[in-house]
Amino acid sequence: MNGAELRLSDEARAAAIAEVSGLVRNVPDFPAPGILFRDITPVLRSASAMRAAIRLHLDAIADLAGRIDRIVGVESRGFLFGMPVAHALGVGFVPARKPGKLPAATVTQAYALEYGEGHLHMHADALDPGDRVLLVDDLLATGGTAGAAATLVHRLGGTVVASLFLIELVALGGRARLDPLRVEAILAY
Amino acid sequence: MNGAELRLSDEARAAAIAEVSGLVRNVPDFPAPGILFRDITPVLRSASAMRAAIRLHLDAIADLAGRIDRIVGVESRGFLFGMPVAHALGVGFVPARKPGKLPAATVTQAYALEYGEGHLHMHADALDPGDRVLLVDDLLATGGTAGAAATLVHRLGGTVVASLFLIELVALGGRARLDPLRVEAILAY
Repeated sequence: MNGAELRLSDEARAAAIAEVSGLVRNVPDFPAPGILFRDITPVLRSASAMRAAIRLHLDAIADLAGRIDRIVGVESRGFLFGMPVAHALGVGFVPARKPGKLPAATVTQAYALEYGEGHLHMHADALDPGDRVLLVDDLLATGGTAGAAATLVHRLGGTVVASLFLIELVALGGRARLDPLRVEAILAY
Repeated sequence: MNGAELRLSDEARAAAIAEVSGLVRNVPDFPAPGILFRDITPVLRSASAMRAAIRLHLDAIADLAGRIDRIVGVESRGFLFGMPVAHALGVGFVPARKPGKLPAATVTQAYALEYGEGHLHMHADALDPGDRVLLVDDLLATGGTAGAAATLVHRLGGTVVASLFLIELVALGGRARLDPLRVEAILAY
């Protein structure tokens, strides 16, 4: 699809956002007391809301149509929209995974967790030199994993043209941490 | 898409299988010595092979078009093809996940691992009564996780109409373990 086909009208975008946001479920005290978890599984289980969410992903980066070579999706919820968006754009998909999951040679990048640090891996041959990459994940919180994924893309010779999230938790400051990377988020809380 | 649109010609199917199987990478001694791992990430990173693989998934269950209500995909590689197949069929997607990942109330089912056992979870409200479910995962090995997912679907009032895998490791006997469940696999090793 070209950019014009990916773009939604203002009315269609507002209707799609209403449908998707109406199905995001708030689960208190998960995964820890005091945390309000935004659960997207009710969006996925609805064929109509899932389709609307995929359309909103494409709409958000419509201006980049034809200028994306691969999508990098972060394990594991980044696989959920990363793959259908890659399929719709006609580009390949590369998973960024936790340690011990990718079988061939990898590059790895640490990122800060609340206590300690995590590590994200990509296959060392996952990108071609100069690949223009769209990062996809379901949630932008502190930006730690997205930042690590962006670093891995750069280390593999690619360029991150944008990052795309279904949900942004604005108070956690991920957008500022990813600066100057372009950040697109469909729903903001 | 209806069943006729999902079905590939014999020639197109053979070409798609050749393209996909040509990109499955054999990685010896992963995750443990003596195990030959079938790595599908080279299929995903190729836009053309990914598209061919999705078409092969749809072709394999073309006779079920219009008789599937939801897809259940098993964490986390089952998300990769489960979502685009659900999108193409116009049905919802439900993740079956490892412990501690799903935020709302779940049902859980144990399955045997080489040492000990694993547990698979689904949200207790993930299905509607009578839902006709297609199980999707990338790999059929012993059938342990697919069997657990099928049990969860039944416990939630659904019916599993078929299970669909990109790769079947024939020697591990998963197909017999899932009997009488219909098993479709695109590539057999």
